[in-house]
Amino acid sequence: MEAIRVYPDSSMSELRATAEAGANIALTKYWGNADPDLRIPANDSVSITLDCTRTVTTVAFQPDRPEDEITVDGRLLTGPARERVSHHLDLLRERAGVPWRARVVSRNNFPAGAGIAASASGFAALTLAGAAALGLDLSPRDLSVLARRGSGSAARSIFGGFVLLHTGARDEDAFAEPLYGPDWWDVRDLIVVVSRAEKAVPSSEGHLLAPTSALHRARVARVAELNRQLLDALARRDFAALGHAAEEDALLMHAVMMTSRPSLIYWLPETVALIRRVQALRAEGIPAYFTIDAGPNVHVLTLPAYADHLQADLRALPGVQAVISCRPGPGASVIPHPGE
Amino acid sequence: MEAIRVYPDSSMSELRATAEAGANIALTKYWGNADPDLRIPANDSVSITLDCTRTVTTVAFQPDRPEDEITVDGRLLTGPARERVSHHLDLLRERAGVPWRARVVSRNNFPAGAGIAASASGFAALTLAGAAALGLDLSPRDLSVLARRGSGSAARSIFGGFVLLHTGARDEDAFAEPLYGPDWWDVRDLIVVVSRAEKAVPSSEGHLLAPTSALHRARVARVAELNRQLLDALARRDFAALGHAAEEDALLMHAVMMTSRPSLIYWLPETVALIRRVQALRAEGIPAYFTIDAGPNVHVLTLPAYADHLQADLRALPGVQAVISCRPGPGASVIPHPGE
Repeated sequence: MEAIRVYPDSSMSELRATAEAGANIALTKYWGNADPDLRIPANDSVSITLDCTRTVTTVAFQPDRPEDEITVDGRLLTGPARERVSHHLDLLRERAGVPWRARVVSRNNFPAGAGIAASASGFAALTLAGAAALGLDLSPRDLSVLARRGSGSAARSIFGGFVLLHTGARDEDAFAEPLYGPDWWDVRDLIVVVSRAEKAVPSSEGHLLAPTSALHRARVARVAELNRQLLDALARRDFAALGHAAEEDALLMHAVMMTSRPSLIYWLPETVALIRRVQALRAEGIPAYFTIDAGPNVHVLTLPAYADHLQADLRALPGVQAVISCRPGPGASVIPHPGE
Repeated sequence: MEAIRVYPDSSMSELRATAEAGANIALTKYWGNADPDLRIPANDSVSITLDCTRTVTTVAFQPDRPEDEITVDGRLLTGPARERVSHHLDLLRERAGVPWRARVVSRNNFPAGAGIAASASGFAALTLAGAAALGLDLSPRDLSVLARRGSGSAARSIFGGFVLLHTGARDEDAFAEPLYGPDWWDVRDLIVVVSRAEKAVPSSEGHLLAPTSALHRARVARVAELNRQLLDALARRDFAALGHAAEEDALLMHAVMMTSRPSLIYWLPETVALIRRVQALRAEGIPAYFTIDAGPNVHVLTLPAYADHLQADLRALPGVQAVISCRPGPGASVIPHPGE
């Protein structure tokens, strides 16, 4: 495995680095924690890091700064969102023994809070940029463990291609590992955007409700079997097997969400229309499978030969705002500072 | 408990009787069998028999008839649908020691196969009319056991008002019993019809798929607790407690359906729009709770003071074809023959 190289960029005035990371689409989902404080997921999950939905984050630790200042897509974070990032920076500061507060500037090339996991790419880029700025010498696995503390699915975005995130008894056991690089298999993820609105209940709060569903434990048990099927499907490049497992766990996760107390219903009418459209397309012989994160947007997994036709078909459905076509992409990396 | 009186109507030429029965809306659902051959449900269920969606069925056993002839809403049944009714008549014929084939004429005052349980009122009316025609002296409990063999939820439609259907180890243990008569509590069920199409997968086939869902056993365990909550809610006339339990099990059942292999998705886009509308109305302080049978239509439970307002509100939503307002109604009864 290729190590991620860390380029500390320090000077008298600040410790600064920039990193980029992609979102990922989970084939089996992270929903609910074994340990909420450490964000250790209740189950292993398998994902594909995407090339099309990326976050670029610059972290600059500055000696005279009184508090962390975090800007995402030009908006200054306040309240719990700011606290979450600041708490994550504390983990990095503790490791490095550097008390300096930071200025963080982060930019997404896709709408945040719309079921495209902005927190995954965001906390992956933040973790890597922060670690690089502080000169921490961390393995990719260590980075994935740290990223997980900020957002569970961020652990997976540390790596490119096809990734497995482990649950575990201790903090350091719950790490992500790359299964295959992005070139292993050219599958496509068409992100069908039907809403850009912020979620009424953010994922980080939804995770805490998972154990209130009578179905949570049954789903966790089933996902272990689905993960075995997925690892086998990836090894054999069996797209139907991958698709069936992904659809089943998407429905399992939303079943847990809907039956939580209170009930979390992330679907919109368009979500059901898209599920039915994918089923109808498959009945016509087109290899298309849906998965749905914690939001109303639908990801349609397909193979390259069908991507253009499907993109046009899905874009024509009522209520569809955009269809973003994605491929397996690279993992998080340190990049030159924007504008330099 | 009032006994259902049986009026055999026999002559030299035929043994004939007519019965009427109402549909029922389950607050906890029957989905999946403990014994598929005997249609013994996997779990107890609680329902309200309705006054507005009724079936009238005449059964005439005739000595010279070569085979059963079954007409529902003017359409002659053939194939598996005919076999199912004919098999049910066999159970009655065995009991009575009468081998005569029958002419059955059944009429519904609501669309069949659209998530309004036509099989419940249909098999309840068929069982009572058939038993009456054959002069069988059966208790209501015995009738409910027999009706269950034709359609699990038909057992509940034997009784009026608020009804409990038991699962059980043996045929005779899985009977329905009346909890409270229709006058106990004036709750309303607004049936919001968004589709009158036949279901792609009938309930009788869907039941057989329930055990293929990884969530089925967890749901069955949870329903036991929800039934305790419902019995308590009915005793205290606590509408919020009734509504929350009903919503949770509707979502649990559809979770099992969606995660069956193959997946059964009965919802339409309008179904989700209605779920969200009910949630929004409740946020405004209106006592409204949804439940959904094996189909896309939504039942909105409410109290009398809100029924007219809600009916108008729901009728105005896109895709809503009709809103049928129902109250708790009477159980199955023998009635004079139509036209006499």
